[in-house]
Order: sequence, then structure tokens, then C-alpha cells
Amino acid sequence: MLNLAEPTRPGWYDFIEDHLDLILIDHAHLEKRAASTALSMVFRYTGREGVPRQLGEVVQEEMEHFTRMLDILEERDVELRRLEPAPYAKELVAAIRPEEPHKFLDKLLVAGLIEARSCERFSILGEHVDDDGLAAFYRELFEAEANHYTLYTGLARRHFPQQEVENRLDELAHIEVEALKAGCEIPRLHSW
Amino acid sequence: MLNLAEPTRPGWYDFIEDHLDLILIDHAHLEKRAASTALSMVFRYTGREGVPRQLGEVVQEEMEHFTRMLDILEERDVELRRLEPAPYAKELVAAIRPEEPHKFLDKLLVAGLIEARSCERFSILGEHVDDDGLAAFYRELFEAEANHYTLYTGLARRHFPQQEVENRLDELAHIEVEALKAGCEIPRLHSW
Repeated sequence: MLNLAEPTRPGWYDFIEDHLDLILIDHAHLEKRAASTALSMVFRYTGREGVPRQLGEVVQEEMEHFTRMLDILEERDVELRRLEPAPYAKELVAAIRPEEPHKFLDKLLVAGLIEARSCERFSILGEHVDDDGLAAFYRELFEAEANHYTLYTGLARRHFPQQEVENRLDELAHIEVEALKAGCEIPRLHSW
Repeated sequence: MLNLAEPTRPGWYDFIEDHLDLILIDHAHLEKRAASTALSMVFRYTGREGVPRQLGEVVQEEMEHFTRMLDILEERDVELRRLEPAPYAKELVAAIRPEEPHKFLDKLLVAGLIEARSCERFSILGEHVDDDGLAAFYRELFEAEANHYTLYTGLARRHFPQQEVENRLDELAHIEVEALKAGCEIPRLHSW
């Protein structure tokens, strides 16, 4: 359903388990960046049907998640400090073709794939995290981010021919796995 | 209450009355920009107490207003097209001092003053607009933007000495009036 070219490797949760607070900080920053990505597309593609309304709602939802992450960090007495992100997003953004309308298509699909991978990781966290409240939160978020994946790819299909979308989604899904692997040494939501 | 150095001139509503659709488009863009301003401060000042949570909520609220503006435009069959903004915001941003921590203080106060002026204009629209639903909407928004003004200036008072905040707010309030006057020829939410 999520069009990921490869599932998360079996050892990922074991790799991050002892760094859960770091993952939570990373997650808070991720929600903020997801809001920013959606908002910048509202600015850039205001005239594209569906973009202002649908991505405007994504901004609201991501910021709501951000606020909930602040609650979770506060409860755990963890400070929202700056954190070097995994190279993941940067690697993926580098695959966005610079000329329009390819740029628009790629931005939608890259945003969609990041949502898809986050979604998959949230589902892993929802299954494995020891804290019941946190596990429930991640199961809830799994659904929200799956909707965002569908929303981004839906916008792509609304504005581009079906075949072009599928081909490019397939290419980018492979790049997405490479982008994950680029961050193999630091425990992050999007580390390998 | 709003600390504006001068009220809106008596002729403003007459000046914009025949361009209400333009004002509504301008207003939609304004909400989007207000969200963007708050979000960029969440990024830049993540470590400043109160900023991530309070400005995160501002982002959510401004995007909610943006979505409601989309509804209003749709009901009136008006397209959200690009629009040259009044020079207002640009003039005000130019007054932000480049070095920290002055920059942080000025950003908070400039954002606060823009909210305050918007608030005052929404109250004028709420009083004069012919369409009952739209007038009610503006009266509702008046309150929301007044809260944002209080929130921005409250953050300033939390992070800077009272007297410094009052002095700078007073200076910027005078610059705000000049910024309004700079846009005297186009009918906009922040035109003279």
C-alpha cells in the first residue's frame, strides 16, 4: 500500500531502542519540517487545484503532531534540542528535478515517500515501544501519516498522467531506500 | 489595548469597499504568510521557552483561517490568484535589527503589530461589510488576532526586560504607521 521499495531492515528497532529519547526529539523536528514542506508547497503551487486546501490541512495536522510531541517530551523531561538529522531528507530532496513541471511532481512524490516511511516506522514503534501510552500514540499516528501519503500521491495523480506518476514513484522509491542507507550510523527515525 | 500608534484613517473602508474580493484574496495570502512567519520562528528559536508550543499553535490557527478563507473565496466564486501585496510587511521587516538578541525581540514585536493592525482592520470589516456571514466571520477573527497580538508581545516580555520591550514597541508602532502609508495606492488589507 505504501509503495516502499524495501521494508525497514529487521534490526532497526534494536538499533534505536536505547536511544528512544533521541528518536522522539528527531520526531518532533520531523513534524515541524513536514509542516514546513507542505506550507512551502502551498506558497509555490497556490494555483494548482487541491494544493492550498489539502496541503493547508497537512500543515495543520503536522503542527498538531508537533505540539503533541512537545507534550511527550515534557512528560519525559526531555529538552527539544537541536539535532543533526539523518542525511535521508537531504538525499531525497537532491533527487527532485529542478525544472517544472517535473519539480512539482517530484516534490509531491518525495513528500509522499517520506510520509510513507515515517508511517512504516511509526507502526514499528507502535508495536515495540515499551511505554503503553507512547505505543498507542504511534499507532494513531501511523494512520494519520498513511493518509498524508495517499494525499500527496493523490495530488500527483490529479495533476500528472497515471503512467508518469507510477514510473517516477517507482524510481524515487528506490532512491528512498538508498537515502535511508546513507544514514546508517546515527540512530534516527530515518536511519538505516 | 493594541498599542497601535494611529488608528486606521476614516476613509479606508470607503477606499476598499468596491474591491472586497481583492481584499479577501489578500487576506487569504496574509493568513498563509502569518503561518509562515510563526513557523520560521519555531525553527529559528526552538530553544526559547514558550516559542515552539505557542507559535506552533499560531501556525495551526492561521492555517485554519487560511482554509476558511478558501471556503469564503469558493462561495463567492473568486479564484485565489497571486496578488502583489501592499509594501507594508516588507517595510516593517526592514526595521528588524539584524543582530541577536535584538532580532528576536523585533521579530516578535513586528509580528505582534501586524496582528494588531489586522485585528483592527477585521473589526472595521466586521462592522461595515454588507454580507452578514462575512461580517460575523470578521468579528470572530478580530478576537483570534487580538489573542495573537497578546501572545507575541507576551513572549517578548518573557524574554526581554519590560522597559526595553515598551520602548521598542513604541518605536516600531510608529514605523508601522509609516509602513501603512507606504502602500497608499493599492486597495489591500494593509493599505493606507
